[in-house]
Amino acid sequence: MKVTVSRKAHFNAAHRLYRKDWSMEKNDAVFGKCNNPNFHGHNYELIVSVTGEIDKETGYVIDTKILSDLIKEHVEEAFDHKNLNLDVPEFLNLIPTAENIAVVIWNKLRVFIDLNKDLEVTLYETPRNFVTYRGE
Amino acid sequence: MKVTVSRKAHFNAAHRLYRKDWSMEKNDAVFGKCNNPNFHGHNYELIVSVTGEIDKETGYVIDTKILSDLIKEHVEEAFDHKNLNLDVPEFLNLIPTAENIAVVIWNKLRVFIDLNKDLEVTLYETPRNFVTYRGE
Amino acid sequence: MKVTVSRKAHFNAAHRLYRKDWSMEKNDAVFGKCNNPNFHGHNYELIVSVTGEIDKETGYVIDTKILSDLIKEHVEEAFDHKNLNLDVPEFLNLIPTAENIAVVIWNKLRVFIDLNKDLEVTLYETPRNFVTYRGE
Amino acid sequence: MKVTVSRKAHFNAAHRLYRKDWSMEKNDAVFGKCNNPNFHGHNYELIVSVTGEIDKETGYVIDTKILSDLIKEHVEEAFDHKNLNLDVPEFLNLIPTAENIAVVIWNKLRVFIDLNKDLEVTLYETPRNFVTYRGE
Amino acid sequence: MKVTVSRKAHFNAAHRLYRKDWSMEKNDAVFGKCNNPNFHGHNYELIVSVTGEIDKETGYVIDTKILSDLIKEHVEEAFDHKNLNLDVPEFLNLIPTAENIAVVIWNKLRVFIDLNKDLEVTLYETPRNFVTYRGE
Amino acid sequence: MKVTVSRKAHFNAAHRLYRKDWSMEKNDAVFGKCNNPNFHGHNYELIVSVTGEIDKETGYVIDTKILSDLIKEHVEEAFDHKNLNLDVPEFLNLIPTAENIAVVIWNKLRVFIDLNKDLEVTLYETPRNFVTYRGE
Repeated sequence: MKVTVSRKAHFNAAHRLYRKDWSMEKNDAVFGKCNNPNFHGHNYELIVSVTGEIDKETGYVIDTKILSDLIKEHVEEAFDHKNLNLDVPEFLNLIPTAENIAVVIWNKLRVFIDLNKDLEVTLYETPRNFVTYRGE
Repeated sequence: MKVTVSRKAHFNAAHRLYRKDWSMEKNDAVFGKCNNPNFHGHNYELIVSVTGEIDKETGYVIDTKILSDLIKEHVEEAFDHKNLNLDVPEFLNLIPTAENIAVVIWNKLRVFIDLNKDLEVTLYETPRNFVTYRGE
Repeated sequence: MKVTVSRKAHFNAAHRLYRKDWSMEKNDAVFGKCNNPNFHGHNYELIVSVTGEIDKETGYVIDTKILSDLIKEHVEEAFDHKNLNLDVPEFLNLIPTAENIAVVIWNKLRVFIDLNKDLEVTLYETPRNFVTYRGE
Repeated sequence: MKVTVSRKAHFNAAHRLYRKDWSMEKNDAVFGKCNNPNFHGHNYELIVSVTGEIDKETGYVIDTKILSDLIKEHVEEAFDHKNLNLDVPEFLNLIPTAENIAVVIWNKLRVFIDLNKDLEVTLYETPRNFVTYRGE
Repeated sequence: MKVTVSRKAHFNAAHRLYRKDWSMEKNDAVFGKCNNPNFHGHNYELIVSVTGEIDKETGYVIDTKILSDLIKEHVEEAFDHKNLNLDVPEFLNLIPTAENIAVVIWNKLRVFIDLNKDLEVTLYETPRNFVTYRGE
Repeated sequence: MKVTVSRKAHFNAAHRLYRKDWSMEKNDAVFGKCNNPNFHGHNYELIVSVTGEIDKETGYVIDTKILSDLIKEHVEEAFDHKNLNLDVPEFLNLIPTAENIAVVIWNKLRVFIDLNKDLEVTLYETPRNFVTYRGE
């Protein structure tokens, strides 16, 4: 019996969407208000989902305490109250769109999840905009 | 890397569930309170999800501004503050159940989304009742 | 020790904002899209709050089961799946704005609440627009 | 055209996570605070989703009133205001983790859903921890 | 300039509503399902609000980190994953209704809040039932 | 009959909490992670509430369309996708704590609201931290 276990977390961060190799005009045309050179920010809400067989002994797929601690150590401590462009190495050459942030989070967590389990990351940039990455 | 990008929107509308070719009794038996001849209404909450490859240049699957504008032009302007049965041509001969509304919205938006991307529509008729259509 | 006890409820209804003694032009100018002659509708979310002394014997200000039943009998059964303009006598000569609906609900419930307790009604017309009436 | 219809419900219950065949120390090590011998509890929020073809005559996949009544009779009446360990027979020899509760609910409802329809159960143990079971 | 600063927190607990000096029949008549001798439980959501002057030097009324730590130490550690009737001394002779729990929390926190500031506690027993105590 | 009418809005912004006249050490001690020199950010959710008599002719205290437009013009356009410290003149010499932001918003809106009506501003910095200012 395969069950998906999901855990919510959150972090607050600043970011700016732009490409150094584009002109300000082109960045404005593509990224609009998100290209403010002084940055803007979000309360990112994160849902991490792990799918696998129920362990018959414990009744758990994964202990949500363990999942919560993984998210805290590898995502919240790295991203919370940070400027994603300036403070987080993964985005030095990668635009911190919601799509790219979700992929980075998935890659950071994947190594800690058993290979026979599936991992999915949903990231809310705002309550109205969100993305999901399943490693496909 | 395929990511799903979702955007929330909303519209308020009146509707009535009934078939003209059925008696009032049969309509009451099947549709209950939803068959009120004077209509009732809902705050419909809509989630439109587009799945596709991340564009390496922009970091976007689809710009949520573009997605938001498509929803505004083709869904909100057509449905908001309307009587679905009387004001919206698609429902002149189609019962405006949540299921059918979701299919109509999916069909209206599908033509504007790249064919190599998948489209999914989730429609909340109330905070407790909702439907999802994936074009399958 | 005075405590406020609140109970959430909800009903779905159609309505139209307009005055019969005004021209269509004036109604459009004042009420905009809400003047659609074919009606539109909402999922109304309701919070009813009662403030009073804690009963030392039961630890209750008011049993939420009793409060919930009062709301069901006097508000939900009267308004749910109804057209407020056509089906609800209170609005035959009163525009069903959120403000007026809140006052009508407060008046309907006030007679069933002990006079030494205060009553407050908050009504969400949408998740973004809501009103509060305290009988003042 | 296949659509997924979802209905939310809820129940409040007490539970304790532990194995009678383990020592208190081992139960504490695995289940932590959830092993409190005096129990703790949750407001469980439940989403039951049924996927199938739209009935052309009614526009429904499944009448949400019927789905809501099934949940009320077979889940809410069995679990609400209960101690899952002591009052619910299914958990006399099964640890009431969120995973196991979701599987039990799925099994209870599956027999009432047409075989040509799919069933999915999502159970929120808290607003931050939830699980999903699809019968796979 | 007086501002109210609010902080949300939460704890999960089991409880039972009954009086030892009443018969089972009377307890059932007054407390209904909440009198289950095996207990039931809730995810309690808590909002603690402090009102006072803005400190001109820091721009804070109260640092939410300090407020959050006070709630963690004096409420969450005392109540989370506990049986309120059996594990929490304050309720050995006090029925743990939402009203009484809110008063107990207010009294526990009041001593740590400056006397020139006001304190308000709102406690959600479920997403539909909640209470507010202001020390009046 | 006095009713409170409330309207929700939102804006996304970056900010930093610090005093130029304090050392980095003192800023860290008082503002912690919020003193990141590279900024962090939030999705601010705003509720603006206006209390006054119901206009007998329209049934409105204030047209929520007018209230929504005021918020859009004077708050969202000034703050959305901005760095509060660098882009918003009001905060050049005022720390952009939630308390101070709420006061600034209240002052910006007060001049557009009839003097016989009361104004209240609630600002969510995160879903867990929020402040309320009533002009007192």
